[in-house]
Amino acid sequence: MAEESFHEAWLKRFGYPFDGTPPDIAHLLRHRSVRSFDRSREVPEETVRALVGAAQSASTSSNLQLWSVISVQEPGRREAIAKLCADQAHVREAHWFFSFLVDHHRLRAAALAAGENPSGLDYVEYFIMGLVDAALAAERMVCAAEALGLGVCYIGALRNDAQGVADILALPDGTFGAFGLCLGWPSHEARAEIKPRLHPDSIWFRERYAPDVDVSEYNERMRSFYDSQGMNPGVTWAMRSGRRVDDHHLTGREALKEFLLRRGFNRR
Amino acid sequence: MAEESFHEAWLKRFGYPFDGTPPDIAHLLRHRSVRSFDRSREVPEETVRALVGAAQSASTSSNLQLWSVISVQEPGRREAIAKLCADQAHVREAHWFFSFLVDHHRLRAAALAAGENPSGLDYVEYFIMGLVDAALAAERMVCAAEALGLGVCYIGALRNDAQGVADILALPDGTFGAFGLCLGWPSHEARAEIKPRLHPDSIWFRERYAPDVDVSEYNERMRSFYDSQGMNPGVTWAMRSGRRVDDHHLTGREALKEFLLRRGFNRR
Repeated sequence: MAEESFHEAWLKRFGYPFDGTPPDIAHLLRHRSVRSFDRSREVPEETVRALVGAAQSASTSSNLQLWSVISVQEPGRREAIAKLCADQAHVREAHWFFSFLVDHHRLRAAALAAGENPSGLDYVEYFIMGLVDAALAAERMVCAAEALGLGVCYIGALRNDAQGVADILALPDGTFGAFGLCLGWPSHEARAEIKPRLHPDSIWFRERYAPDVDVSEYNERMRSFYDSQGMNPGVTWAMRSGRRVDDHHLTGREALKEFLLRRGFNRR
Repeated sequence: MAEESFHEAWLKRFGYPFDGTPPDIAHLLRHRSVRSFDRSREVPEETVRALVGAAQSASTSSNLQLWSVISVQEPGRREAIAKLCADQAHVREAHWFFSFLVDHHRLRAAALAAGENPSGLDYVEYFIMGLVDAALAAERMVCAAEALGLGVCYIGALRNDAQGVADILALPDGTFGAFGLCLGWPSHEARAEIKPRLHPDSIWFRERYAPDVDVSEYNERMRSFYDSQGMNPGVTWAMRSGRRVDDHHLTGREALKEFLLRRGFNRR
């Protein structure tokens, strides 16, 4: 399958040509979410071990490693997780499914065993730290997977029923299923397009925040993209995204504040 | 400079040999934080534009793009930021310094202009989403930078004085400086070692969480590593990390809960 050059990927991503000599990072611009997998090929466990090694090689604040990952492969358990994740078919069908956790439990237990008092973990700071740790690890794993030709899709819907996920995965207090990740060989027939993003000037600011960003160009670019994909005809990015963050699309996640407090996070 | 092979990097990272044929992702296992930079070489703006393009190519939940990044290059402003970041010399000295933000402001403004009601943004769900978006973007940018031979160091200390950072960068409500990133050409004389991590069996679980992880092997491995670096002689990972998360090492971050509420985050 032909892969986009840096210039081609940039043009699809931002709608204008890159001005200059691109560095050799085209593979990192080509990301698209993969929701359709070719199960005629295997992803051996050996490969996943290497990918988890890449995940663990990401930065982690003060080397605390406040994250973990659980692979969910047993058909019954995978089915149960898929149901909780808005019944998304790719959660069911991916070669591998991972639940990335914020994890205070492991460090808390180790610290207590060493005679230390890990009493600060209930500050919001350590929820932030665990969530950033988990996301950095996951994205390095994703970059490694994509370098091998594998495809991924993050699953925010893992947060739709945080208690249900905790029950299925036997998560103790001090852990939180932050997001899921589908991973496998892409089915090339169903390959998604590179999705357009905001103009870099709307997201990268110099020296100070720019509060009056004009997203009208992006609104129109996304209107064309939605039209080309047969989705949301006539709708702009701001309309679609604004609706996404109203009070009516929390899909269970309105319970997260209370859930996290109960699990020992964000108390202070 | 000789780079570690996959097998060499794995051994340094985990203390035992990788059993199998490694896939071609050694470059993603070699990460180390870079805190000393070679300012005799430039990192041109063109390169940074490409790297931000990589960052924007990371997954973002529902394409909401709830993050932004501010580059801080003016000497006075960089100096002020470095002072707030525990006066770390590498914040001052890196070729480029970036502040990654959780950003609800841009979408809120765009949604209101489109006649939508972005009232859900004050749920903790959208703080999580923005923080994960920011971290995924940053780590894809880091993987791209490292592919070019550049080095990075994340700066969690950007959270030590969140209000001070907000003042210097003119951050409006609905934005939060989540972490910093130093980026530049590494000074090879001061190259850090690959840092050992937990055994993969302590962080990657199968099907269910494993609450009784034994980290004693890692404690000893880290004791040797600290000794070899002349730091924390005789201290284990659990002792050092447990102390790090007690009540006395919040370095200003104990104010984050209140700060975030004031900025419109996590109210529900």
